[in-house]
Amino acid sequence: MLSRIKLRNDMLAFHNDYHAGAHPEVLKALVSTNGAAQDGYGADEYSESARARIRHAIEDEQAEVFFVTGGTQTNQLVIDTMLSAWEGVISADTGHVSVHEAGAIEFCGHKVLTVPSENGLMDPNDVRSLARNFYDDPNHEHMVFPGMVYLSYPSEYGTLYSADQLHEIRAICDEFNMCLFIDGARLAYALGSASEHLSLTQLAQIADAFYAGGTKAGALLGEAVIFPAGRGERGSSPAHFITQMKQHGALLAQGRAMGVQFDALFTDGLYERIGTQADELAQRLVGVMRSHGFEEYLISSTNQQFFVMNKKQFEALSAVAQVSLWEAPRNGRYIVRMVTGWDTTEEMIDQLDKALSI
Amino acid sequence: MLSRIKLRNDMLAFHNDYHAGAHPEVLKALVSTNGAAQDGYGADEYSESARARIRHAIEDEQAEVFFVTGGTQTNQLVIDTMLSAWEGVISADTGHVSVHEAGAIEFCGHKVLTVPSENGLMDPNDVRSLARNFYDDPNHEHMVFPGMVYLSYPSEYGTLYSADQLHEIRAICDEFNMCLFIDGARLAYALGSASEHLSLTQLAQIADAFYAGGTKAGALLGEAVIFPAGRGERGSSPAHFITQMKQHGALLAQGRAMGVQFDALFTDGLYERIGTQADELAQRLVGVMRSHGFEEYLISSTNQQFFVMNKKQFEALSAVAQVSLWEAPRNGRYIVRMVTGWDTTEEMIDQLDKALSI
Amino acid sequence: MLSRIKLRNDMLAFHNDYHAGAHPEVLKALVSTNGAAQDGYGADEYSESARARIRHAIEDEQAEVFFVTGGTQTNQLVIDTMLSAWEGVISADTGHVSVHEAGAIEFCGHKVLTVPSENGLMDPNDVRSLARNFYDDPNHEHMVFPGMVYLSYPSEYGTLYSADQLHEIRAICDEFNMCLFIDGARLAYALGSASEHLSLTQLAQIADAFYAGGTKAGALLGEAVIFPAGRGERGSSPAHFITQMKQHGALLAQGRAMGVQFDALFTDGLYERIGTQADELAQRLVGVMRSHGFEEYLISSTNQQFFVMNKKQFEALSAVAQVSLWEAPRNGRYIVRMVTGWDTTEEMIDQLDKALSI
Amino acid sequence: MLSRIKLRNDMLAFHNDYHAGAHPEVLKALVSTNGAAQDGYGADEYSESARARIRHAIEDEQAEVFFVTGGTQTNQLVIDTMLSAWEGVISADTGHVSVHEAGAIEFCGHKVLTVPSENGLMDPNDVRSLARNFYDDPNHEHMVFPGMVYLSYPSEYGTLYSADQLHEIRAICDEFNMCLFIDGARLAYALGSASEHLSLTQLAQIADAFYAGGTKAGALLGEAVIFPAGRGERGSSPAHFITQMKQHGALLAQGRAMGVQFDALFTDGLYERIGTQADELAQRLVGVMRSHGFEEYLISSTNQQFFVMNKKQFEALSAVAQVSLWEAPRNGRYIVRMVTGWDTTEEMIDQLDKALSI
Repeated sequence: MLSRIKLRNDMLAFHNDYHAGAHPEVLKALVSTNGAAQDGYGADEYSESARARIRHAIEDEQAEVFFVTGGTQTNQLVIDTMLSAWEGVISADTGHVSVHEAGAIEFCGHKVLTVPSENGLMDPNDVRSLARNFYDDPNHEHMVFPGMVYLSYPSEYGTLYSADQLHEIRAICDEFNMCLFIDGARLAYALGSASEHLSLTQLAQIADAFYAGGTKAGALLGEAVIFPAGRGERGSSPAHFITQMKQHGALLAQGRAMGVQFDALFTDGLYERIGTQADELAQRLVGVMRSHGFEEYLISSTNQQFFVMNKKQFEALSAVAQVSLWEAPRNGRYIVRMVTGWDTTEEMIDQLDKALSI
Repeated sequence: MLSRIKLRNDMLAFHNDYHAGAHPEVLKALVSTNGAAQDGYGADEYSESARARIRHAIEDEQAEVFFVTGGTQTNQLVIDTMLSAWEGVISADTGHVSVHEAGAIEFCGHKVLTVPSENGLMDPNDVRSLARNFYDDPNHEHMVFPGMVYLSYPSEYGTLYSADQLHEIRAICDEFNMCLFIDGARLAYALGSASEHLSLTQLAQIADAFYAGGTKAGALLGEAVIFPAGRGERGSSPAHFITQMKQHGALLAQGRAMGVQFDALFTDGLYERIGTQADELAQRLVGVMRSHGFEEYLISSTNQQFFVMNKKQFEALSAVAQVSLWEAPRNGRYIVRMVTGWDTTEEMIDQLDKALSI
Repeated sequence: MLSRIKLRNDMLAFHNDYHAGAHPEVLKALVSTNGAAQDGYGADEYSESARARIRHAIEDEQAEVFFVTGGTQTNQLVIDTMLSAWEGVISADTGHVSVHEAGAIEFCGHKVLTVPSENGLMDPNDVRSLARNFYDDPNHEHMVFPGMVYLSYPSEYGTLYSADQLHEIRAICDEFNMCLFIDGARLAYALGSASEHLSLTQLAQIADAFYAGGTKAGALLGEAVIFPAGRGERGSSPAHFITQMKQHGALLAQGRAMGVQFDALFTDGLYERIGTQADELAQRLVGVMRSHGFEEYLISSTNQQFFVMNKKQFEALSAVAQVSLWEAPRNGRYIVRMVTGWDTTEEMIDQLDKALSI
Repeated sequence: MLSRIKLRNDMLAFHNDYHAGAHPEVLKALVSTNGAAQDGYGADEYSESARARIRHAIEDEQAEVFFVTGGTQTNQLVIDTMLSAWEGVISADTGHVSVHEAGAIEFCGHKVLTVPSENGLMDPNDVRSLARNFYDDPNHEHMVFPGMVYLSYPSEYGTLYSADQLHEIRAICDEFNMCLFIDGARLAYALGSASEHLSLTQLAQIADAFYAGGTKAGALLGEAVIFPAGRGERGSSPAHFITQMKQHGALLAQGRAMGVQFDALFTDGLYERIGTQADELAQRLVGVMRSHGFEEYLISSTNQQFFVMNKKQFEALSAVAQVSLWEAPRNGRYIVRMVTGWDTTEEMIDQLDKALSI
């Protein structure tokens, strides 16, 4: 089989963080556990072990943890099951749920209420204004109630909210009886950032629900959805969550396929190690790009880096590396995303440096 | 990690066909391809290779093939995208979509129109009557239009429709402008049956859509959904299917995770080999059960076998093997399911024989 | 305008109870209130007055009352807003929500769980069995939870549950934590029945929600949905019900159009008077039909009467009266519905008698 | 009844155009037709006559016409049935479907794609940009397809698109394969405007679907939805529209209740007469308001007028007339809506003038 496929190993793959299978330690766990008879639908011992490790990592022994296959499915499932029928979800206008999920939230009947963003981040004041204006509006009974704030950490642009911003958003949620859901599809890279960031424990203290993404951080697939115990009335998992997962088509028979991987990701700090290494290499990548005259589109301390360039630069870069064109070019201006992951190496960065020098 | 988990290897696992990870050849493929950089969302070379192998196996080079994570998700996605808004799906009252999907079809807005069943199979006459009565009804504009026939092959009880029955159902679909969707979550075990059964090629000639299930036949996860090209107007894949997959939360970023596995399953006839072996062992299992006084609940030529027993028998059996209680016991009558899979061995059957003899 | 339209006044209209505009007292109220400036969306003084009259009639001063345009809309709205996402509604297999609403319940994501019926009525034992079997089923987490019992009073066949049956169904609801919703599209004709029936007050004591239909009992349109206060936790109206009405497209700007009519219907017992008169005339109609050799299909004490006849009889009857063919004729057997309403008169019955005699 | 209700006839009602029942000619038609036996669900002779009159008025004998109870229901029904599952609807950010329908569009699974607006109107260039950017986006398969442009005529702020703008939007729809749906909840007031406006015939030539609203223009309730015949492939009514109306809870049993009213509204040009009179009085109202120092918030030639004022002015105005506070006051700035309707008279304007003078 492999001989038939012409691998593009001559290219330097920087186009995304889900192009390379599973981290070797995750793969090893899949191999070593394969064949053992286990119960289905997440009742296997590996999933149980993974749940225990995650609870330990977030220092919340009563948290509920579920494994779901992908990010959009997770967002759709969590938002639909946490919101009441008459509620919508507040998101940055660049948020994944707003732009890149083909309407998966609306498919379940909920409106995405957008606020402006800068580099992927909402200003907490805009969130507060949206909620306040809603309740002040004399016609608000004819409008969609804001029931949740959704934010990505890191954002779709690799950026991070400050701890102050996150606590302010939490306070706004409390003031307006909204829950807070944090999309952690790339959470590993927030945890690995050299910049200020919240720890897993701190996230569990402010979010009503959040997830630690596996698909983009060393797993073949899978996201670990966490409902911390400490967030009071709205903080526990939605009622009959297993049944609701089934109803959404989100309950895997071989739940072990995800349990095994998260058990490995949360053993010996692998999840954070993956993030730290990729973030460091991303900074190195930025240095190389700068040295070749490429301009950063914004400042990011995580594994996604964005550059703005002209057509000629874009073609030169594309000739030596796989990169991702982030939006349709306008007026000769190209916004390009480059991403590091568990399989990125120093050698790849050096090769890029060399290739761009020619 | 493994030392901590008390494996129940002392038990003989006959409770389902998704308790044991991936078939060794599938696992080997996952290992050997891991790390190669690939595109996401099913555009990887392994998925492309798997699609080519499947097209070859069904002798339909124009068929469209997509990979989806699990059975309920597949049923939900295919039924919702193939039906028009005013249409429902005809199913056996014991059909998976009718009973065991927590309302996933209704979640997408479609009614399941049930017909009676015997051992999991509909009588084609009942299907015809439902459709005919609908169109004869003077009020049918106020009713749900029958737009599709859904059937499981094998059925939820391991039984198989005859070729004649399948062709009759196809003809009924043609007569009433319905499409035919075949749930092949356990298709491998139909293909492996020693009894009369349709081949992959024949299935592709009668179905508007069907799937070859991986989750229950040697894969960690994944179902291959096939839209044959030859079925005319309704036979091609629903419009913008990738977008609709995304909208349903059914599009994996690492599509390769399924592509690699199906590439292996359709190499050297592995998919059918898995079915044949499990079906043969299932017959051997029936012989052993019979020899110990257990009565078959129905006759099945595939990997699912059902037995009816009293409480004492159930307790004796449960003490030595993992089995599945199929419904709530009534009047002291226990319906028990036993299943073989890729990991079932002759030794396990012998051990069961021995254990029941004590 | 009227001269252009050829009215079929030469026909005796017995085909339904919604063919004749509004009862004169209702029409008079529409005329006398027209032009007065009122608030919209049900906040007008007529709606408020109607609500007060209904609360008085059911002897429940805390009940919540809303006006909705039609029966299917009411069923869809109430069922969707009272059920949780993972719940379905139990109904007779002949129930309006199951057969004649084009899938309006499934459109909102909920399954209709059917039990057999006889003459439109469920056996309470079948309701109990469905609920009990669900909870006894070892796989019930993968199934739709029964969250509500829906019944029509009178049923779609004009029949009435006995008080004992209704109390038994209420007890089953309590046992299995289900709510009870009574479809009263033709409630006037239950209240007017000479047979045993519950009063409005008694209905309010057993139902979590019910409605008094106007469309088929003297109004141009409108159903009064009542959420009695006394039924505990699940008995109050669903949260933010006005917003949810809006979201379902069920909130009229000129709510007064319904408020005025219900104010008239609940003045001086008009609602029950309409029922009593129509029920009495229906019995007279049965006498006439019997005297001409037509056989009753079932025994009904309300305004809907069903007869079974051969083709010749059907043609003779159709030649002199507008009647309703209830289902597609089979084997030369015609099931025909005849209905009385507020506009039915003794003279019409006499004319029918005479016409059939020729 | 009437004696009990304290009517607020001492107030001058300018708060909306649906506070006063039906226009006398409409009421007269309801009275004169009441009691005649008719078929249900829109098959009555009054509805048929109304459909014929509307087809005549738009000069399109093949157009399909349906009657629906209210504006939100119409928007929800038309948008959901015209769009494919993967499509969303483009609207002004101030559009009724975007802001004031409690998420009715999302309830049916569709996203509202907003563009900025000024005084309720979109710039066609923004519509084009949204569509073009979508198709140019390399990731558009993961996004919601723009399938329809929704616009209100008049807009929610009483303003009117120019003929040029409307033709440009039509051209954009053609270019990007979108349909055009015009919300005419207040269409009478566009037709009555002294400013440039399209005629009914011209609207039928550019829209794939539009409606002539009755609720806010002289009817008790009802909107006439029109699918012109001439708009090609997407111009006919959605398949099985009666069944889909039923499924949406939008099919009235006594369809005549709306048919009779629209038959009257389209007799002797009543619909346009209502609009013309109200629009003229609205201009007179503006004159009076100006003369008392109130400032227009924007320029409108239809029956809705908006004024901006300080708190003192608002209190003075509220003391003598019923007006509508349009949004939560900010920084002491009040946006107030005043509306004329079929029941507005010159005397009322004069009285207002007098009352404000005191």
